[in-house]
Amino acid sequence: MKIVLIGSGNVASQLGVALKQSGQIILQVYSRQVEHANELAERLGCDAIDKFSSLTLHADLYLICVSDQAIEEIILQLPKGLSGVVAHTSGSTALSIFSESGHPGRYGVFYPVQTFSKAKAVDFKTIPLALEASDPETYTVLSGLAELLSEQVFPCDSKQREAIHIAAVFACNFSNYLYSVADLILQQHGLSFDLMRPLILETAKKAQHFAPATVQTGPAVRKDLKIVKQHLEFLEREQPFDPHIRQLYALISEILAGK
Amino acid sequence: MKIVLIGSGNVASQLGVALKQSGQIILQVYSRQVEHANELAERLGCDAIDKFSSLTLHADLYLICVSDQAIEEIILQLPKGLSGVVAHTSGSTALSIFSESGHPGRYGVFYPVQTFSKAKAVDFKTIPLALEASDPETYTVLSGLAELLSEQVFPCDSKQREAIHIAAVFACNFSNYLYSVADLILQQHGLSFDLMRPLILETAKKAQHFAPATVQTGPAVRKDLKIVKQHLEFLEREQPFDPHIRQLYALISEILAGK
Repeated sequence: MKIVLIGSGNVASQLGVALKQSGQIILQVYSRQVEHANELAERLGCDAIDKFSSLTLHADLYLICVSDQAIEEIILQLPKGLSGVVAHTSGSTALSIFSESGHPGRYGVFYPVQTFSKAKAVDFKTIPLALEASDPETYTVLSGLAELLSEQVFPCDSKQREAIHIAAVFACNFSNYLYSVADLILQQHGLSFDLMRPLILETAKKAQHFAPATVQTGPAVRKDLKIVKQHLEFLEREQPFDPHIRQLYALISEILAGK
Repeated sequence: MKIVLIGSGNVASQLGVALKQSGQIILQVYSRQVEHANELAERLGCDAIDKFSSLTLHADLYLICVSDQAIEEIILQLPKGLSGVVAHTSGSTALSIFSESGHPGRYGVFYPVQTFSKAKAVDFKTIPLALEASDPETYTVLSGLAELLSEQVFPCDSKQREAIHIAAVFACNFSNYLYSVADLILQQHGLSFDLMRPLILETAKKAQHFAPATVQTGPAVRKDLKIVKQHLEFLEREQPFDPHIRQLYALISEILAGK
């Protein structure tokens, strides 16, 4: 398949590399900032463009890999007469954005359920790909490609996709934030974040095999309210400049102890 | 070393098995509920007791592996004349609990920085062990034993230990709670928690090599407030019976977006 990547951030980079490895031909990388387009295009051995007037009309797929706010603007700027499928990669943008923006052709969603950072390559095989399309034929185009990348490809409507995105914010973005809170507390007491690393890995591994609610541990869930209170006092005393941390400890403990 | 385990829960079980594997002799397992003591004693090939009057006076180490609230009561009930070291395994109980309870002998703390569940055996080699003792000689006894189990043994005062415990509550107990929130949201939309598993593992693996604050992703940290608002509306609409989840999303997003 001949593919154009619109965007040059983490999703575009990781997806571009995986698509190329699967034997696809990346024709162009578009970015408003030509140096960003250049950087990724060089890695993928393709052309870099920074104007929609330079967009090839002859790709099979145009993958929009930009921040959610920018998707509509991109669709509005696409040249008329694209024969290929246009798909975005966003968790929380409905499929209807294409029809609402008056896109005339075939379209879909190609959503990888994973967090990407440029720092770390990921193995696409294990990344679930949630697909949605304007029509069955387009779905077949997207799923044929998706199955080359991932072992877990499934149809998913816009509401389910948003639920997945929100779940991922909790399970991944917010978990990582909790790791950073742990790091902060340790640093303030002259201790290394290395102390948390085995624990973090063990907790994530446990979630691979168990339903997380069934393996919940800690002072709050065993209703050890003396320790919860002692921890809250510690946080008040030791982190007075960061009341959010105490507030968060109180809120989650209250939920867990209330169960 | 000849060791007595006081307690028969997750910590006692995992520690008992690891100690036995390292070549130590477990003499007795104490539990108020004799059937619990029996179960672990059978696995360790030792005696089960449910009365302190049956406690041997001739162990080198008495390891108190009970919930934090029960530690003081245990110390108060120990027979006088123990020649061995008495140590508790709690993150948030100060060393001074021994002197405050009038314990006459040598004592210490042997705190494994890990979460234990009976469901899953853990590899002690990677578990940091934080030690504290009444005197240097006792520290040497504890560290000699600890080094047989773990590659990461270090001295740690009571305040630092409480900081570690609180950090672990955030990084582990609370992260697991977030996983369960994700599970709940997915279930309510007919989706499997399997969708989160690669993401969870990837997030934990990333934390093995990076400082978590430097790899934070998600709508809030990139100040995509339209998506944050959209997610809050989704949670209000779809989870009206569980306002805590919305409250938690709002609080963490506010912290992340404010950075």
